[in-house]
Amino acid sequence: MELLKSSLHQIKPLYEDKIQEAWQRIDNLTKPIGSLGTIEKIAAKISGITGNLVNDFRKNIVIMCADNGVVEEGVSACPKEITKIVTQNFTRGITGVCVFADMVQADLTVVDIGVDAEFNNPKIINKKIMWGTKNMAKEPAMEYKEAVRAIEVGIEIVDELVKKGYNLIGTGEMGIGNTTTSAAVLCALSNLEAEVVVGKGAGLTDEQHKHKIEVVKKALYINRPNTKDPIDVLSKVGGLDIAGLCGCFIGAAKNRVPIVIDGFISSAAALCAVRLNPLIKDYIFPSHLSAEPGARYMMKEIGLEPMVNLNMRLGEGSGCPFAFFIIEASQKMMRDMGSFEDANIVNDFLIDIREEKAI
Amino acid sequence: MELLKSSLHQIKPLYEDKIQEAWQRIDNLTKPIGSLGTIEKIAAKISGITGNLVNDFRKNIVIMCADNGVVEEGVSACPKEITKIVTQNFTRGITGVCVFADMVQADLTVVDIGVDAEFNNPKIINKKIMWGTKNMAKEPAMEYKEAVRAIEVGIEIVDELVKKGYNLIGTGEMGIGNTTTSAAVLCALSNLEAEVVVGKGAGLTDEQHKHKIEVVKKALYINRPNTKDPIDVLSKVGGLDIAGLCGCFIGAAKNRVPIVIDGFISSAAALCAVRLNPLIKDYIFPSHLSAEPGARYMMKEIGLEPMVNLNMRLGEGSGCPFAFFIIEASQKMMRDMGSFEDANIVNDFLIDIREEKAI
Repeated sequence: MELLKSSLHQIKPLYEDKIQEAWQRIDNLTKPIGSLGTIEKIAAKISGITGNLVNDFRKNIVIMCADNGVVEEGVSACPKEITKIVTQNFTRGITGVCVFADMVQADLTVVDIGVDAEFNNPKIINKKIMWGTKNMAKEPAMEYKEAVRAIEVGIEIVDELVKKGYNLIGTGEMGIGNTTTSAAVLCALSNLEAEVVVGKGAGLTDEQHKHKIEVVKKALYINRPNTKDPIDVLSKVGGLDIAGLCGCFIGAAKNRVPIVIDGFISSAAALCAVRLNPLIKDYIFPSHLSAEPGARYMMKEIGLEPMVNLNMRLGEGSGCPFAFFIIEASQKMMRDMGSFEDANIVNDFLIDIREEKAI
Repeated sequence: MELLKSSLHQIKPLYEDKIQEAWQRIDNLTKPIGSLGTIEKIAAKISGITGNLVNDFRKNIVIMCADNGVVEEGVSACPKEITKIVTQNFTRGITGVCVFADMVQADLTVVDIGVDAEFNNPKIINKKIMWGTKNMAKEPAMEYKEAVRAIEVGIEIVDELVKKGYNLIGTGEMGIGNTTTSAAVLCALSNLEAEVVVGKGAGLTDEQHKHKIEVVKKALYINRPNTKDPIDVLSKVGGLDIAGLCGCFIGAAKNRVPIVIDGFISSAAALCAVRLNPLIKDYIFPSHLSAEPGARYMMKEIGLEPMVNLNMRLGEGSGCPFAFFIIEASQKMMRDMGSFEDANIVNDFLIDIREEKAI
């Protein structure tokens, strides 16, 4: 609990002066004011995070892997064993996140935070807290202190990555059943009904989908999570993967490094982190809008707008490389675009458009 | 007219068998069926275009540069001279499209198709048809045969790029006043009113914006373009840049190479091309949703959905590199992701999810 408490206290607001300095440079680049839209806003926000107008990023996607007891309710189209298999496959370079991460030279950190299997694989970091959670439709998924420990694992992982020189983090996960837990977390932390946010995950039939909605409702009814305490919510109806990623968001904000949301599950983790400390929001960048129906509500709840809409719903962190590319485009803009002076744009005109902006 | 006619006739549908073959591979990759959403659809469409399941792309963004006579009506926040200056700057590596293109190793082809200035710059291809169009608020922007010639310039440019080995084309433009002409083209080719589609371009005041709407209405009223003939529309209320890009879309489809839309202006060109031959649509990939208000209507009219939403409105082709990255991600998926067999996903499960898909 100490690491979590101290980390939450160490989080500071963005550097406002650096944001202003960034906007001065951005508004003097050779383009109509504001015409690079979100790219400009990303650049300014990054400056407020790091304190530098231009940044070279070393990128890492943290993949939290864990099993969910609720799978025994039949909420997933996939058998539980897939968690173990895909976790292994992250280290073999053949999954979705592997191939996209390779395009932007992002490294992966695969963490076993609660898979119901043993790995003899040096590329998988063993931070196992439990062999999968309990079935939240029958009892709390885990104890409060286990949720705290899972969050602290995420903080520790990011602390270590930052020590190694990584300064742009992505979030990914693997855990059969985790769209169910994420939906339950969202329901608990918002006023939304299960019907609205529960999706078909990796491919349920309509009937199975209805059943999944009932399971989420039952889990919330039985466990009555304290909606003012995200840790209580995580422990009762969440998962070890979501809790671990929640810690990653906290760790990134503490270390002043930008961190990217992938899809529905990692945004559930981001929502928990932002509820624990609202300052964390300023360190977070969404990537794509997941095809999971709850994803848009999650984004709304956090107050962020995704950059990309590719109807993806793979998870694993597979959306992060797309956001990394866009974030790096913002740095490329800051580094290499010419100013109005470089561009030989006449001074009179320059004054014109600056006045216009003031209006 | 011969080149245009023959090119339109040479355009063939996509290879349906290759699309099916692509889906077979995609659905056997280690992920839930359909979970990579648009990335999967892009991969299948690309296979239907090129006939290959995996493609290595050499990328080029064609930037058509031209002046618009309608600027004398005061429809732009920028003076006309900016067309000339920015056209020069494309060859100096300092504009938005230059820095983003560099991230994905895309080359640029800068074409003077009608700038009201003379360039002594070997990096600018001289295909000047006129020294800027006439003022469409008073008379047709150009003659019918000039619009045909401009389209043919675009076809020729793409023909040459394909000969040089480029096989993924982007579209960009520079021409002060071209959001006005694009809005007029969209109004003429749809049932939309100027009020809905005319935006503030590079930064107009509310009053100037109202005036711009009136100018578009006047141009349509005076010239009465034949809404069934995109070439008549282009000649009367379009621009040389739009016409040139329209030719690029035709050329790309003829040569079976995928081509990317940037923003509002290049989508006006795409719309004209698709109206000339509906098969062209299958060769086109949108990139981002421009912040120009007409952009979403243009996308709807063409029937395509943008991949990225970054509130950009710079033009130049600056959105194309983002689409190139996503298109290349689809090829990376096809090349490097493991199959279910590679992934050690058990056979029973494999049969399960395949049956599910059949349902």
